[in-house]
Amino acid sequence: MTGLSTRVVLATRNEHKIRELARILTPYGIALESPSDLPDVAETGATFAENALLKAREIASVTGLVAIADDSGLVVDALNGMPGVLSARWAGRHGDDAANLSLVLAQIADVPEERRTAAFVCAAAAVAPSGAEVVVEGRVDGTLLRAPRGSGGFGYDPIFVPLGFSQTTAEMTPEEKDAISHRGKAFRALAPRLSELLGAVE
Amino acid sequence: MTGLSTRVVLATRNEHKIRELARILTPYGIALESPSDLPDVAETGATFAENALLKAREIASVTGLVAIADDSGLVVDALNGMPGVLSARWAGRHGDDAANLSLVLAQIADVPEERRTAAFVCAAAAVAPSGAEVVVEGRVDGTLLRAPRGSGGFGYDPIFVPLGFSQTTAEMTPEEKDAISHRGKAFRALAPRLSELLGAVE
Repeated sequence: MTGLSTRVVLATRNEHKIRELARILTPYGIALESPSDLPDVAETGATFAENALLKAREIASVTGLVAIADDSGLVVDALNGMPGVLSARWAGRHGDDAANLSLVLAQIADVPEERRTAAFVCAAAAVAPSGAEVVVEGRVDGTLLRAPRGSGGFGYDPIFVPLGFSQTTAEMTPEEKDAISHRGKAFRALAPRLSELLGAVE
Repeated sequence: MTGLSTRVVLATRNEHKIRELARILTPYGIALESPSDLPDVAETGATFAENALLKAREIASVTGLVAIADDSGLVVDALNGMPGVLSARWAGRHGDDAANLSLVLAQIADVPEERRTAAFVCAAAAVAPSGAEVVVEGRVDGTLLRAPRGSGGFGYDPIFVPLGFSQTTAEMTPEEKDAISHRGKAFRALAPRLSELLGAVE
């Protein structure tokens, strides 16, 4: 594998995701590029996997490089699996974490403890300009608090307590979170497959 | 059946529902009472039927009369069946029709026409002080517009076009709407069963 072949473009402009994915993928010798001028890709898919592939395909096509993309969200059982693919725009505007989190808390205000179960789900996709592609999913189950706790992470982290833990994912160190997170699991599963795709580029 | 036995208490303070149900049930010789001092009943059920029964049981118990209750909502396929039982409080506060409707429109803004399917569902429950109870469901399928149309009805009526129609349920006359609506179907199915419950009181 040449130096060139380690160039992977990350199809996101979300600073939080860029940082998390750099942490997760660096140990695999994968260097991420995240140009600030990537086009917006409409997330019109009905599933995390569809949206991750939509984004990775578009960015691979535009850049001529292997592109990786993440689509992820919070799956709340009392909301029939929503916000799901709409997690980042649940309150109506894209990327307003505080509004999204407040809305979920208000919607499930009357839901008793035993039904406050949820999961974070992440689809990680990689697409080569040749058209070769792969998508894998990671998931972490947990429960939802009634008020936010912790200042780490982003999105719905302050209300999500993974099964077997007492802290929210916003109260964990980045390393603790990566070890159990949906995104950590998905991209660690993707990493070895990525090498295949990168190899195919050479 | 005595004059007394036609007294049925409606477990709601929603003026729109009181008017609709009076229209629907009057032809069956059922006279509704809707006292303004009914207690609030927490709608903690996971289904329309559970919530309708929760409300009717509480009001039958408090008043000593046969109580009927409605729980209904909009079931949006692209939102995995939500807002569902949360329809009246989807934006976080109870009864803010405009905010609820705007939020649904924003959440499904990127959903293409073929996936903008939805249904109005209504559970109609009747409970006698004796404990006898019955619950039935009515449903109307349709599609969701991208902007509201019409000033009749309430709730999500301005964006809902029933299958086989070109108007929204907010553009129909009350009689046209009742003939096909989830609430019309449910309460017309409930009416004959109500006579049995009323008979059981005597």
